[in-house]
Amino acid sequence: MTDMTTAMDQSHELISSARVEGTPVYSPQGDKLGTIHAVMIHKTTGQVAYAVLQFGGLFGIGSHVHPLPWDKITYDAGRHGYVADVTREQIEDAPSLDLDATDRIRESETPMYSYWDSKPYW
Amino acid sequence: MTDMTTAMDQSHELISSARVEGTPVYSPQGDKLGTIHAVMIHKTTGQVAYAVLQFGGLFGIGSHVHPLPWDKITYDAGRHGYVADVTREQIEDAPSLDLDATDRIRESETPMYSYWDSKPYW
Repeated sequence: MTDMTTAMDQSHELISSARVEGTPVYSPQGDKLGTIHAVMIHKTTGQVAYAVLQFGGLFGIGSHVHPLPWDKITYDAGRHGYVADVTREQIEDAPSLDLDATDRIRESETPMYSYWDSKPYW
Repeated sequence: MTDMTTAMDQSHELISSARVEGTPVYSPQGDKLGTIHAVMIHKTTGQVAYAVLQFGGLFGIGSHVHPLPWDKITYDAGRHGYVADVTREQIEDAPSLDLDATDRIRESETPMYSYWDSKPYW
């Protein structure tokens, strides 16, 4: 989505979902780890559970996606992207999800949070 | 964004940001109040602060947008959209924001939450 929302100052407290989507994620060393496809939001609480990373190409039926907890990524205005202190190998080793199961994650997400030593959102 | 994410079952706990965007919002009587342009996410906590509604047309410089607290909208699978127990007139009377200020809302959002008698996210 291209509009003014995507052109805002990076220094503010809030960020538009439209700007998060499509934003690259880099390692601290500057390697591109992937792109944020979308964030998954808990319907009732409005809490972002995790970001879904994409590694290029389009998703199709049967795609596996790589969830990354929100608290693992930090916006870096200088890089125009997010930085996660993880490696591509860690992401590839991390629990993946069937794309069509990304919204019914509760029972399946515990391994993801354990793997990343991250705090579940609930 | 059109992909499998947008075709998922509506009954699960999480929802993709990509599916929220572009989704209509109806009154309980079925009147279309607008469309969700995006949700604004607190960068640190990952909490959705509010949804930005769009009333048709594209945003340009100087556009005013209408924020609606997340807890005012509920997904209705039967309507394939959200339902908010508000009227179009209430939305038009509610505090609006310059689009380019939607991510620096803290100081300006208090009237919005007061108007809607809603709980601020922070």
